[in-house]
Amino acid sequence: MTDLLEIIKNRRSIRKYESREISDALLDQVIEAFQWAPSWANTQCWELIVVRDPEIRKNLQEALPPKGNPGSKAIVEASAVLAICGKKSVSGYFKGEKTTKFGDWMLYDLGLATQNLCLMAHSLGLGTVIVGLFDHDKAAKAVNLPDGYELAVLVPIGYPAKSGGAPQRRETNDFVHQDTF
Amino acid sequence: MTDLLEIIKNRRSIRKYESREISDALLDQVIEAFQWAPSWANTQCWELIVVRDPEIRKNLQEALPPKGNPGSKAIVEASAVLAICGKKSVSGYFKGEKTTKFGDWMLYDLGLATQNLCLMAHSLGLGTVIVGLFDHDKAAKAVNLPDGYELAVLVPIGYPAKSGGAPQRRETNDFVHQDTF
Repeated sequence: MTDLLEIIKNRRSIRKYESREISDALLDQVIEAFQWAPSWANTQCWELIVVRDPEIRKNLQEALPPKGNPGSKAIVEASAVLAICGKKSVSGYFKGEKTTKFGDWMLYDLGLATQNLCLMAHSLGLGTVIVGLFDHDKAAKAVNLPDGYELAVLVPIGYPAKSGGAPQRRETNDFVHQDTF
Repeated sequence: MTDLLEIIKNRRSIRKYESREISDALLDQVIEAFQWAPSWANTQCWELIVVRDPEIRKNLQEALPPKGNPGSKAIVEASAVLAICGKKSVSGYFKGEKTTKFGDWMLYDLGLATQNLCLMAHSLGLGTVIVGLFDHDKAAKAVNLPDGYELAVLVPIGYPAKSGGAPQRRETNDFVHQDTF
């Protein structure tokens, strides 16, 4: 199965989108991929908000730093924005207590699920970009996120208008170790 | 492309392994999938330790809770254990300063990369299980992890001897919201 490796290696962060909309049928497949992520003790702390409303997207965009964020335009121009959220104090917890030094594993589990989503989108011809640098509380307010949850990343999704080259990756012999570090 | 959705949906956590070894050629592909994960501003904070040494694996196993962890045997029985580590204060940081309320995004980025690894392994007929519940400092010591790094998860990998049914997932209408939460 080399197909999967190609999907993984060819998926790029897309920041320029065509204006055409993505169908519900395609979005459903992307969401299904997200849904089937593994999670800490199958806790599935995730919540997913599909934002299409232009006013709310403008508010989300305003949560980004005013200049220099290459993903900023995508927040309002892509077909939709997926706001990936998580319930706090669930993943990594047992009976209300942290079970490891890392405390909340929400971000880790959302990482697993986000990757499913991005790979699935790419395999369907759709682009995504994972935006993490913004005022998270301001963005959470824009989508009426209740207490006890966090909005972690915004993922614009749509048909790519432009793709770029692959950012360089570290060589495997730079990060792979045998038996000990 | 429905193949990817099948890979995603059919990948299970594998806790019972055959004794036969996995080849370097297969492991290389799994590592290549890991290598090509996206990361915060392409910071690639990851480090991967391939642990085959029985003594070190016994020490890793001893970092797990003494009873009740279904992944415990896999630490010593699978063909290898991948210790997924990250450099601290890199992902989510800019010029040494945290850029968001979440501080270190290491766990999120390792989640993205772990999912690539698990999907690739499954597509090659290999099983994996993500083990996160253990004494992380004790495990880090077992692999001589230097200061400034964290060992996040242990991922046994090998040929599955037994698979299980799919843990139930939340229905999409339980976690998908339109425009606002």
